[in-house]
Amino acid sequence: MDRRSFLRNSTLGAGAAAAASTLAAPAYAQGKRTLTMVTSWPRGFAVLDDAATYLEQMVGEMSDGMLTIDKKAPGELVGALEVFDAVSSGQADMYHSADYYFINNHPGYAYFTAVPFGGTAQEVTNWYYHGGGEELHDELGLIFNMKGLNAGNSGSQSGGWFRNEITSADDFNGLKFRMPGLGGKVLGELGASVQNIPGGELYQALSSGALDGLEWVGPMADERAGFQEVAKIYYTAGFHEPGSALSANVNLDVWEGLTAQQQHILRYASMATTHYQLAETLANNGAALARLQSQGVKTLQFPDDVWDAFGAASKKVMDENMGDELFAKIRNSFETSMANSASWIGKSDAYYVEQRVRVLGG
Amino acid sequence: MDRRSFLRNSTLGAGAAAAASTLAAPAYAQGKRTLTMVTSWPRGFAVLDDAATYLEQMVGEMSDGMLTIDKKAPGELVGALEVFDAVSSGQADMYHSADYYFINNHPGYAYFTAVPFGGTAQEVTNWYYHGGGEELHDELGLIFNMKGLNAGNSGSQSGGWFRNEITSADDFNGLKFRMPGLGGKVLGELGASVQNIPGGELYQALSSGALDGLEWVGPMADERAGFQEVAKIYYTAGFHEPGSALSANVNLDVWEGLTAQQQHILRYASMATTHYQLAETLANNGAALARLQSQGVKTLQFPDDVWDAFGAASKKVMDENMGDELFAKIRNSFETSMANSASWIGKSDAYYVEQRVRVLGG
Repeated sequence: MDRRSFLRNSTLGAGAAAAASTLAAPAYAQGKRTLTMVTSWPRGFAVLDDAATYLEQMVGEMSDGMLTIDKKAPGELVGALEVFDAVSSGQADMYHSADYYFINNHPGYAYFTAVPFGGTAQEVTNWYYHGGGEELHDELGLIFNMKGLNAGNSGSQSGGWFRNEITSADDFNGLKFRMPGLGGKVLGELGASVQNIPGGELYQALSSGALDGLEWVGPMADERAGFQEVAKIYYTAGFHEPGSALSANVNLDVWEGLTAQQQHILRYASMATTHYQLAETLANNGAALARLQSQGVKTLQFPDDVWDAFGAASKKVMDENMGDELFAKIRNSFETSMANSASWIGKSDAYYVEQRVRVLGG
Repeated sequence: MDRRSFLRNSTLGAGAAAAASTLAAPAYAQGKRTLTMVTSWPRGFAVLDDAATYLEQMVGEMSDGMLTIDKKAPGELVGALEVFDAVSSGQADMYHSADYYFINNHPGYAYFTAVPFGGTAQEVTNWYYHGGGEELHDELGLIFNMKGLNAGNSGSQSGGWFRNEITSADDFNGLKFRMPGLGGKVLGELGASVQNIPGGELYQALSSGALDGLEWVGPMADERAGFQEVAKIYYTAGFHEPGSALSANVNLDVWEGLTAQQQHILRYASMATTHYQLAETLANNGAALARLQSQGVKTLQFPDDVWDAFGAASKKVMDENMGDELFAKIRNSFETSMANSASWIGKSDAYYVEQRVRVLGG
């Protein structure tokens, strides 16, 4: 994305948002404001739609109904992967999605969901609010006329569902696999035929054989999606999304037309959403995994040499994008922050948990 | 705490809160409400006062000044450790503190900050919002006429500051050491002379030799407090507080007199406070530790046999409280939730970080 398209989009967005403001005038007159939020999640999809729902609820409750979010599932206004263009153009006020779906708009968006061998949910949050992440999200957003908000996190995502065990990196060669973002490009390096299919269409694609395997989120979300009915091998840890942030990006003209109070409610509700929803996911994954196992699912970890292959291919994919100045700036900021976080976490939380397991024996 | 004192406190609280409501009436008349919040933290104390400040700021911004928090440092209204009684009686509307300072009121309060060999910040959050913790906080709060709110978390706390290295558990025998909560009782089992001194008085106590050592929070907070000037041995991991939650408990009659919107703002602002402040702490601890080391501080981990001694003494201290029905109920709820969280985290985040360190080499 060059500066020319930045200006083009910015102008476009401003015009569209002016129209949107006019349309919203009657609601304004009564002191109420409704924001149309398009999402990439079918209603009831665990973890992802949960986060979108909590955001909607918190904003409505904290504003006493003076600011409401009207959440739209895929197909109600635009398709699951059309939300970015809809908000950039002003067709919708905001979206709830995963920004790495939009790396073809700019590869830097990968960092606002997750990157291969990137940060855990906590490390990503540390960076976003206290390592320059939010400012970079807004810098990217300027290109596309959007204010960035981080609202939700899936936690560490599972390696995914397979029909057969992975015994070497060669097993990815020719595999029809769903994985979005830069992680998908990494599996492409290993020879996989990688597709980004929206969540609502995955069960059918796996059932029909259009896909040989897929990664979605983690036990709580994957169980709800029903993948255990059509595949029986489940890798619990993955290299591709160690802590995937969700976004609630707002059209920039819409954002700038909000009162300071409304902006504060949206931003703090986004933080509370991540806090509350991530905890729910992590509180439920253990029990969900046990239920999957009781339905005949075999849980595994990838062998070390497969992790090594993931590592080598990841480095290549990351480096390929370094010609883009903003990508390089975002990557550098993220990696600096993560190294700093990790240096302490290794000496505190991680060492503590190691001792807890050793002393208590479990 | 028996049922008789529950009723006594409840009645007392109700009377005092009625008086407080009368006093607040003029502010109500203008549609504005101010809550007096007493804290256990001197102004500017990193991490702890930061959390209290973020809560104050978020509530004011999201209500556009219609609900404000008037934060009081220790001594401005009551002393650092008098905040519990002040809020229970209705002298103050709410407090920001660490509930384990009040285990002499009820040992169950330990769980709403941290317990020996307990949960990491994430595990504590999982339990609080999705494992029954908040409801149990409120059940305890009924005894003392308080609504519980979790607002802030220190992350995993350091083992602490010592003048000499700890080479065996015997080194704690006779040591004058500051550690609050059940952790302090554990060190007492090892022969330490344990004191709970408010944070604002610790530097002086360590300098004068009134204390041989202390634990406070972690690098970011400890550096600000200046302990590196008077002790040079720093243990980075500790058994006693693996993820200490902070509380913003509200007098129950005051809480019930708030509008639903005001309650929602307080509760969601509390979540956002934890999310934002914990990330700040964890983003800064690594750099703070490096600065401490550059000032001649030696960082260590306790030897395994010392961890074993912590483990045996912790079990004894926890079991001593099991005669209290509510303590037992809280402990069971917490441990069930933690086991469930840990079962997944071990297979996902923890395994991922292990592979990341192995593949990337650090």
